[in-house]
Amino acid sequence: MPKRIGAFGEVMMRLQVPGVQLLSQGNTLNYSFSGTGVNVSSALARFGHEGALISRLPNTSLGEAAAAYLRKLGISSSFVIRGGEYLGLYFLENGFGARPSKVTYSNRLESSFNTAPEETYNYEVIARSLDVIHFCGITLAMNDSVRHHMKSLARAVKQQGGTVIFDCNYRPSLWGTEGYTLAKPHYEEMLELADIVMMNEKDAIFILGMSSVQAEREEQLLELIPAVAKQFDISVIAGTHRSIHGDNSHSLRGFLYKNQSFFFSDTLRFLVYDRIGAGDAYTSGIVHGELTGFTPEQTVRFAAAASMLAHTVEGDTPMASEADILRAMTLSVGDVER
Amino acid sequence: MPKRIGAFGEVMMRLQVPGVQLLSQGNTLNYSFSGTGVNVSSALARFGHEGALISRLPNTSLGEAAAAYLRKLGISSSFVIRGGEYLGLYFLENGFGARPSKVTYSNRLESSFNTAPEETYNYEVIARSLDVIHFCGITLAMNDSVRHHMKSLARAVKQQGGTVIFDCNYRPSLWGTEGYTLAKPHYEEMLELADIVMMNEKDAIFILGMSSVQAEREEQLLELIPAVAKQFDISVIAGTHRSIHGDNSHSLRGFLYKNQSFFFSDTLRFLVYDRIGAGDAYTSGIVHGELTGFTPEQTVRFAAAASMLAHTVEGDTPMASEADILRAMTLSVGDVER
Amino acid sequence: MPKRIGAFGEVMMRLQVPGVQLLSQGNTLNYSFSGTGVNVSSALARFGHEGALISRLPNTSLGEAAAAYLRKLGISSSFVIRGGEYLGLYFLENGFGARPSKVTYSNRLESSFNTAPEETYNYEVIARSLDVIHFCGITLAMNDSVRHHMKSLARAVKQQGGTVIFDCNYRPSLWGTEGYTLAKPHYEEMLELADIVMMNEKDAIFILGMSSVQAEREEQLLELIPAVAKQFDISVIAGTHRSIHGDNSHSLRGFLYKNQSFFFSDTLRFLVYDRIGAGDAYTSGIVHGELTGFTPEQTVRFAAAASMLAHTVEGDTPMASEADILRAMTLSVGDVER
Amino acid sequence: MPKRIGAFGEVMMRLQVPGVQLLSQGNTLNYSFSGTGVNVSSALARFGHEGALISRLPNTSLGEAAAAYLRKLGISSSFVIRGGEYLGLYFLENGFGARPSKVTYSNRLESSFNTAPEETYNYEVIARSLDVIHFCGITLAMNDSVRHHMKSLARAVKQQGGTVIFDCNYRPSLWGTEGYTLAKPHYEEMLELADIVMMNEKDAIFILGMSSVQAEREEQLLELIPAVAKQFDISVIAGTHRSIHGDNSHSLRGFLYKNQSFFFSDTLRFLVYDRIGAGDAYTSGIVHGELTGFTPEQTVRFAAAASMLAHTVEGDTPMASEADILRAMTLSVGDVER
Amino acid sequence: MPKRIGAFGEVMMRLQVPGVQLLSQGNTLNYSFSGTGVNVSSALARFGHEGALISRLPNTSLGEAAAAYLRKLGISSSFVIRGGEYLGLYFLENGFGARPSKVTYSNRLESSFNTAPEETYNYEVIARSLDVIHFCGITLAMNDSVRHHMKSLARAVKQQGGTVIFDCNYRPSLWGTEGYTLAKPHYEEMLELADIVMMNEKDAIFILGMSSVQAEREEQLLELIPAVAKQFDISVIAGTHRSIHGDNSHSLRGFLYKNQSFFFSDTLRFLVYDRIGAGDAYTSGIVHGELTGFTPEQTVRFAAAASMLAHTVEGDTPMASEADILRAMTLSVGDVER
Amino acid sequence: MPKRIGAFGEVMMRLQVPGVQLLSQGNTLNYSFSGTGVNVSSALARFGHEGALISRLPNTSLGEAAAAYLRKLGISSSFVIRGGEYLGLYFLENGFGARPSKVTYSNRLESSFNTAPEETYNYEVIARSLDVIHFCGITLAMNDSVRHHMKSLARAVKQQGGTVIFDCNYRPSLWGTEGYTLAKPHYEEMLELADIVMMNEKDAIFILGMSSVQAEREEQLLELIPAVAKQFDISVIAGTHRSIHGDNSHSLRGFLYKNQSFFFSDTLRFLVYDRIGAGDAYTSGIVHGELTGFTPEQTVRFAAAASMLAHTVEGDTPMASEADILRAMTLSVGDVER
Repeated sequence: MPKRIGAFGEVMMRLQVPGVQLLSQGNTLNYSFSGTGVNVSSALARFGHEGALISRLPNTSLGEAAAAYLRKLGISSSFVIRGGEYLGLYFLENGFGARPSKVTYSNRLESSFNTAPEETYNYEVIARSLDVIHFCGITLAMNDSVRHHMKSLARAVKQQGGTVIFDCNYRPSLWGTEGYTLAKPHYEEMLELADIVMMNEKDAIFILGMSSVQAEREEQLLELIPAVAKQFDISVIAGTHRSIHGDNSHSLRGFLYKNQSFFFSDTLRFLVYDRIGAGDAYTSGIVHGELTGFTPEQTVRFAAAASMLAHTVEGDTPMASEADILRAMTLSVGDVER
Repeated sequence: MPKRIGAFGEVMMRLQVPGVQLLSQGNTLNYSFSGTGVNVSSALARFGHEGALISRLPNTSLGEAAAAYLRKLGISSSFVIRGGEYLGLYFLENGFGARPSKVTYSNRLESSFNTAPEETYNYEVIARSLDVIHFCGITLAMNDSVRHHMKSLARAVKQQGGTVIFDCNYRPSLWGTEGYTLAKPHYEEMLELADIVMMNEKDAIFILGMSSVQAEREEQLLELIPAVAKQFDISVIAGTHRSIHGDNSHSLRGFLYKNQSFFFSDTLRFLVYDRIGAGDAYTSGIVHGELTGFTPEQTVRFAAAASMLAHTVEGDTPMASEADILRAMTLSVGDVER
Repeated sequence: MPKRIGAFGEVMMRLQVPGVQLLSQGNTLNYSFSGTGVNVSSALARFGHEGALISRLPNTSLGEAAAAYLRKLGISSSFVIRGGEYLGLYFLENGFGARPSKVTYSNRLESSFNTAPEETYNYEVIARSLDVIHFCGITLAMNDSVRHHMKSLARAVKQQGGTVIFDCNYRPSLWGTEGYTLAKPHYEEMLELADIVMMNEKDAIFILGMSSVQAEREEQLLELIPAVAKQFDISVIAGTHRSIHGDNSHSLRGFLYKNQSFFFSDTLRFLVYDRIGAGDAYTSGIVHGELTGFTPEQTVRFAAAASMLAHTVEGDTPMASEADILRAMTLSVGDVER
Repeated sequence: MPKRIGAFGEVMMRLQVPGVQLLSQGNTLNYSFSGTGVNVSSALARFGHEGALISRLPNTSLGEAAAAYLRKLGISSSFVIRGGEYLGLYFLENGFGARPSKVTYSNRLESSFNTAPEETYNYEVIARSLDVIHFCGITLAMNDSVRHHMKSLARAVKQQGGTVIFDCNYRPSLWGTEGYTLAKPHYEEMLELADIVMMNEKDAIFILGMSSVQAEREEQLLELIPAVAKQFDISVIAGTHRSIHGDNSHSLRGFLYKNQSFFFSDTLRFLVYDRIGAGDAYTSGIVHGELTGFTPEQTVRFAAAASMLAHTVEGDTPMASEADILRAMTLSVGDVER
Repeated sequence: MPKRIGAFGEVMMRLQVPGVQLLSQGNTLNYSFSGTGVNVSSALARFGHEGALISRLPNTSLGEAAAAYLRKLGISSSFVIRGGEYLGLYFLENGFGARPSKVTYSNRLESSFNTAPEETYNYEVIARSLDVIHFCGITLAMNDSVRHHMKSLARAVKQQGGTVIFDCNYRPSLWGTEGYTLAKPHYEEMLELADIVMMNEKDAIFILGMSSVQAEREEQLLELIPAVAKQFDISVIAGTHRSIHGDNSHSLRGFLYKNQSFFFSDTLRFLVYDRIGAGDAYTSGIVHGELTGFTPEQTVRFAAAASMLAHTVEGDTPMASEADILRAMTLSVGDVER
Repeated sequence: MPKRIGAFGEVMMRLQVPGVQLLSQGNTLNYSFSGTGVNVSSALARFGHEGALISRLPNTSLGEAAAAYLRKLGISSSFVIRGGEYLGLYFLENGFGARPSKVTYSNRLESSFNTAPEETYNYEVIARSLDVIHFCGITLAMNDSVRHHMKSLARAVKQQGGTVIFDCNYRPSLWGTEGYTLAKPHYEEMLELADIVMMNEKDAIFILGMSSVQAEREEQLLELIPAVAKQFDISVIAGTHRSIHGDNSHSLRGFLYKNQSFFFSDTLRFLVYDRIGAGDAYTSGIVHGELTGFTPEQTVRFAAAASMLAHTVEGDTPMASEADILRAMTLSVGDVER
């Protein structure tokens, strides 16, 4: 049975130099609109659920274009408030081989989302309309006012009996120096509220300040994730380990910890077209599996395949249907479908 | 000495989403015109023969554009009749890595080609103007009227002493359920008329209903192809075995059966840019080798190299000259030519 | 108060050669999705109503892309049924000055919409969800089965007390020779059901077979429209007179007949970028004025300005907000807004 | 009855900055291939004749692309010789309103055409294959060797009883200072050989050194053209008067002098998209009218309408069919054709 | 003799939807970099002077691209300081006919330029390197810190004996409500320092609070400009009157007040391609005329022609050379230059 | 401390078919401007030196565009003379996998650079303004007049105590048959003048006519390079060995011979996007290392990494900063930088 899923987060405009040119070489940009909340609510809508975004957009041509783009992605905009003046945006220069991709942000702190005043969102009404709500660590890094909205919404959903998902998603550049110290209490507060959490052993070590006797990340994971789950009473913790190769391919292995057990996907190796947003595809796969009643084994394999496919499409937002993902889980690389 | 070669087949418009976007992401398409007959007659014209298409195009802007495109490819349009209303077309969404390409067809059964009335083609006149004629299994799948044109033309060419080429090219989606049963008598009729046939062991098993005691496709090939050649009195049977790898490369090995002997190309492994039409390049290589008096060893190697190069150009239609192919047969991967 | 408005009609893919090239010159196309129902429901959604389309789309990549496009336009897809195989499409070559634009259609009779079987639409459920429903003469020209859906829906809405809008929109190429004779009974049936009708004196003369003693179209209009309104008991009849000038500009004058009186807009003269769909913008303006309680004078001026603006945007579908139109009604040509 | 028409002239690559950017602003170019001979032979092929180009192209990728482009235009390439090294090319920056378009040439004197050695063209064989041959003053400006080919071909066609067309087309930048003195004997030689000549009063005054007592160009035309016709025994002299307006429109009036009488088209005023090649469309119209047996009145109106339409398409080469032109002669500006 | 000219102002990124699409329709943008200071210093460099920009750019890919763009325009970047984090940017949706263009700004107050700290610019060093410096009212509207830089630079140049140019350029949206009151003292301070001022009667009335007994703007101009020149001891005041027509053309008349006399250009009417930056072209023409020793009549005609040409190129920045402008002053609309 | 570096060489326009199409398939080109001197002076300017080009450009739109492009690259144009008529240009068709890239040149011998008359360059003034000057073997192949400029400049710089760099860069197609015999004395003259030379063992064997007892190129290198250094008294000789793989990757190993010792980089294997100009990046790295006082080990590793990165950007000209290269030397392949 389809669920009603909300995601709280900023909508950003992505401005990408086409091909592999640098900003100083070209004169055209491709644009789209995304964000962790956009990606997750859109992917879940594509899986058959009702996906709604809780956000704020300006009353400008940019806001209009963003709203149209969200509708195109199948996202319900009932909780998208219009107001404020600016839209956050970032520029993307694609890398190639030995040259990494580069992201340059505009000043997102003045965006409509990040300047949403006290009364912007009606937490109770929103909470009553949702079965599940998704938050992420990027939003948590913005400012006190956004954090207040975030925690209030989480609490409201919790009180209505809904499920709270939290993706740790720590971005050092957003928290600045002394970032881990600054971030820790906020992360702990969110972990207390969360039922499903996306993280791995690095988050435990760097954000939560845990320490491990192990040297290998696989071992650290096995040691620390159960400790986190226990400490914060979290039902499901999931995440990935990624390796990046020189031939334009990545390897990815998903894990899922639930009921005191770990479940792992195969290590998938695949060619990468667009890496941004592939983590959100993994999250969406985990959430869909949990909401739909997949076994943990199925869920982690589904999420890993969803993430793999998200690397093969242009743009931040996953475009694969459930059928596409199920086929990718079972088949080998195929010929043209005609 | 150049030969006069005709190919009977439909011209289709190919509408391709640029890059790797999906139809639901983009807003532009690249278009070209192709078809098995287009590809084969164009490739043979490029090798120095006279290549003519026998087909029917509508009297619309689309028909005009298609005719101009055929001329550009060097194809003689003396036997391209104008009439009817529609042009068949298909949409192509490029895959990437683990995500396969996807083809969506329009309703081609209403096309000018597939609704060509009784008197459209003057079989005798056409047959007298040609040394060789090419047909394929896609055309055979259309409808009774097209099949009538096809067989009448084949018979007329045969009576004039010309050579008949038939490419089995079975497409399950065109024949529907019970397709093999439906197709079998038509295929048998064409094989009776043909001198040169493109097929492999799968065609023998699935279309002709033969069975093999072997499990490996290489063994099945060695068992079944001679049987087919004998049963239908076919001079030359040729085809390929293809493997698809996860790193955007394919492997291809060509075979040629003639005078009770098999000849094989090396197994070529190469990066793939555009897979569609690469089979027609192989056919063209076989036909050119046979018409030009290559040894069977040369022919099969030439055809395999022609097919390999066809994977490296955009569009369905092979663009390599004889010189390009001969160089690809002898040289290793090269630096910029300047 | 916003109304719930449905429009019954086909979604077509528009494939436009960019700039002023011909299909035989270029190799790229821009695509979008439109149709009279799409244009009207989208425009009314933009004016603040709930706009829903009643239609049928195939389960293919094309259907997926069309559905995403409808969502982007703000159209509710609750009544968009998925099924069938094909999407109707047309090619547009832009004219320039003395050279007219040219439209080439694919075979739309095989489209999902035009092959929708008996049980496709639940007329009662749809009728209960709507205040108003819109139909047009293009749909009426398709086939008996589509006409059956159309009249059944009109009757169901009528029975629920809803308002029926009918845009005569006679396209000679769709009805063929003897078209007027063939069309007349169907048009009469729709006019009997309709409350608001889009037409002008030519429709009265050619479709309904009325005759006028007047020579000038302005006089014929004044004579015939009241007769039509009386005969079919229609509340509102509206339409336009258009003149086309050699300098890339058109002149347009809107009329509205209601309560035995005629109301006219000024004759607007304006530069034309994209003429297709501008009639639907006029319809949308009339409907919005009527539903919102504008005076007839306001309504006809609003509709004419809406139509004028629709000539200035790319694509078939009107993109102007109510505010844009109100400003265009009052202001002269302006400088950059910054 | 269709005629066999040849045109002798250089093929040049046209490299156009898209839109209205300057070369120093942009980074992309659109390319096509043209030339007076290309334009005339293509237009006449479009009117149903056999149009052949007599020219020379290099054996490079550029020559290959040019040859494919000629085929696309419907031009027979039987007399297109391959050899030499370079292709002439020019860059086009579009003007806008008060800013004129700008053309920058490459060094065309080293082109394959302009370095064609003595034995390149078999004058007798070519002359026997043609009913009509076309030359222009641009070719005459190249060098002695090209002039030798040109006059030899003209004489050969003349001896076979064919018709010789000569378009004066004097380009000051090609002849340099003292150009008129240098050009005069060559022009006189061509006029002696020609049956149909494209020129106006300015050519008579500046190239042939005639003088007129009149001040207005209309009067000068009436005085000088009959004198030229008489002196050189020319059957038909035709040309245009053009005025350029500030609003992106031109006015054009065609004239035709034949059997001691002048015939004029209306003065057509029209929006201009691409002015280059529109003179060749006029020539093609005159030639088609003469070859097809139009009355002189029809011919000059047909040619003027052909030229008008050639201003409305992209590229140098006329794209209108006979039907398109006949409609443009009779109809006013029209709505979308659908 | 070429002069050394500096311009103090912000560099902004211009992000333009191609063609006439809206941001909510398209998915690509063209980008360039501009600003009043950029436009003026580039235009004067194109006229043969040394043009330098005094500004601040971030150390990001955007700053890198902006710096490369300035170099391309021929602007010296000796005084372009690198620091801060953001670049101001704006989105441009082109209008068409009755639909105006629309500009949407990002939050420019956080830009590198607008957050330049106290010690950023070495006023004395800059002043010693320049003969002339240019400021504009847009910069004056930013914040106190920018105003401090602006006035300090103006004073330093004044003390070195240089010429100060001030373009009033009042933008209501930047000053907010009560803007005129807020702006007045700052404008007065700049006018006290300025030698050459760009303004018209509206600036005198609205910013300086002057009143006129006249009703027509032409009369108000004649009354108020001399008063301003006298009050603030300004050598040269210049500006334009513009009318906007419905057919995509504007009319422009330039004036120059100097030595108690008015000088006017003809009223030029011309088609408009890109209106943004055309005022800066006028300023550049006035400055060039003054620095080069043109008569006032020549200067005002040169400036008006420069502005007219700036409407015919893409982008904010004038691209015409002195020769281009001189020709536009003397010639009528021309044919292709080849 | 930054150095003043000049490079003497031709600027060519690069016209590239986008994607992997052939010239006969496409209709658009991307253009940029490059040349060995352009690449080297730009790369060194990017590393913080003053990079100047000594060259000659025509006074046309092409020359204007080239000059703007050089400025954008950060190259000083103080020694770029304007005159002559043409700009050399070349067309690039990208290869893919087994299909090599193809370059087609225009007639560069008529270019402004190659027709520069005697007095074009003031050798003494230029020499006094430079610390270092760079020449290459492509320029040496042009004609006697260019060679005269080249050697005169080299001698002038030498006399001023500057450093002379010479890149052997032998292109067989430019020297023709008997090329090595023709080239040898000119190469020897340049090697006599040079302090830093780019070459490898093949140049020693084929141009200088040396012979080696070794069969492997690595052994030949070790034998011949010291001999060359000794014979011509060269301080530094550097170059690369390259292998090309079938999977779109190359391997590169740099060497540096100095003070009787060889220094080698690791063999780097990397994906290749645009191979043209990557040799110039290597040269720039060697020169930068030498001028900046890197150890030879650092220099050769820096140059190899610079060359590797140059394969990953579009266009001939290296775009990497010193920081980019230093990071590429130390880090493994990375994730998105954000």
